[in-house]
Amino acid sequence: MKIDVLSLFPEMFQGVFGSSILKKAQENNHASYEVYNFREYSDHKHQSVDDYPYGGGAGMVLKAQPIFDAVETLRESNKASKPPRVILMCPQGERLTQKKSEELATEEHLIFICGHYEGYDERIREHLVTDEISIGDYVLTGGELGAMVVIDSVVRLLPGVLGNQESHMKDSFSTGLLEHPQYTRPADFRGYKVPEVLLSGNHAKIEEWREQEALKRTLTRRSDLLKKYPLTDKQKKWIQQWKNT
Amino acid sequence: MKIDVLSLFPEMFQGVFGSSILKKAQENNHASYEVYNFREYSDHKHQSVDDYPYGGGAGMVLKAQPIFDAVETLRESNKASKPPRVILMCPQGERLTQKKSEELATEEHLIFICGHYEGYDERIREHLVTDEISIGDYVLTGGELGAMVVIDSVVRLLPGVLGNQESHMKDSFSTGLLEHPQYTRPADFRGYKVPEVLLSGNHAKIEEWREQEALKRTLTRRSDLLKKYPLTDKQKKWIQQWKNT
Repeated sequence: MKIDVLSLFPEMFQGVFGSSILKKAQENNHASYEVYNFREYSDHKHQSVDDYPYGGGAGMVLKAQPIFDAVETLRESNKASKPPRVILMCPQGERLTQKKSEELATEEHLIFICGHYEGYDERIREHLVTDEISIGDYVLTGGELGAMVVIDSVVRLLPGVLGNQESHMKDSFSTGLLEHPQYTRPADFRGYKVPEVLLSGNHAKIEEWREQEALKRTLTRRSDLLKKYPLTDKQKKWIQQWKNT
Repeated sequence: MKIDVLSLFPEMFQGVFGSSILKKAQENNHASYEVYNFREYSDHKHQSVDDYPYGGGAGMVLKAQPIFDAVETLRESNKASKPPRVILMCPQGERLTQKKSEELATEEHLIFICGHYEGYDERIREHLVTDEISIGDYVLTGGELGAMVVIDSVVRLLPGVLGNQESHMKDSFSTGLLEHPQYTRPADFRGYKVPEVLLSGNHAKIEEWREQEALKRTLTRRSDLLKKYPLTDKQKKWIQQWKNT
């Protein structure tokens, strides 16, 4: 997968693209990352990329020209069979979900546009991008961290990227329930003990305990997830019992 | 604000802490960041930080000892009047909201714990941390990007951190509505024109257009936000009119 990023702060990406899974994915040719400063595409004599908003008001707005020209240059260099997805990181966008990441993981070429504490000229939204994504309902300084989050969540889904150990992490958002508690040695840490069932060697009991704890945790912390979760009869009975005590 | 991060991949943070607003906040003594590799706190002869889960199963679990010792060392170095908040980044955590960031921005010392494709020993959750935070319902390789997201959203709220220009960005999650479209020069870009009202100079009309567009966009993209938004009578009438056409 080819991943291109447009940003006014390309240096922000070095640490993240150069570590851990994203680094390995690039070394093993599963993904390649390039970050471009779209200031270099400005046709303005001082390479300006923003201007005052029409209609007045505070703040500045990112101009259409540098971003259109940068995306079009990258589009032309695209050698994939499909046209690239052009993704605008912005608070007004669709909220990122695991399903969206899975969908993007089937693509060959992604282009990310990251603004930085400024609005985008609306014509970028209307005539250039294919997707607008927000990673959550909180305000960030720019789109860079959001792009890194999307890229991490997508690249780890590409075939061959995760090794055995990493892929065994139970994914809360894949099973539909939050993960059950985990413990490792020592059995007694400063007087805090591991639940006895986990030391019992009784695998059926351990599985039941884990299922119950995952369910309890989801019930307490994220009851919204249970609305979409197909509870078994046994699970429904447990929940009824817990409510009665 | 003092911000300490525990991570097995400290190099991931360099680009983000060294750029833009976070860099300026540190230069101007509004915030200071330190990243510690908690492997250095392991009392194991090979500095191991993880071990097999009790009760069996695939994957590894981060041990309590290195993380307890690292957090306690940082707690002891804390010279703030309040004890630090100890924040575990994990998918089971409370989802980050702008309100949570505002609350954290009133603190003096934050300690972030970032796991990396492994579970945490439950005793860390039970006996060490004050907060568990998730940035959204998607799977990431580790807690590092989540911690950067929380830190960016918190630090930009500290008094004095944002300059005039940056703070004038209208924050979607502060007003309760998504932002209206913005345009800047040229008025005609490749045949794509700026709405005439914005060129009219009629400020009352411009304000009304913006209010309507913000409302329309929120209605189309994020009707969930409107449930909490106190609509004026005029806004209710507009919505009724749009529904009838």
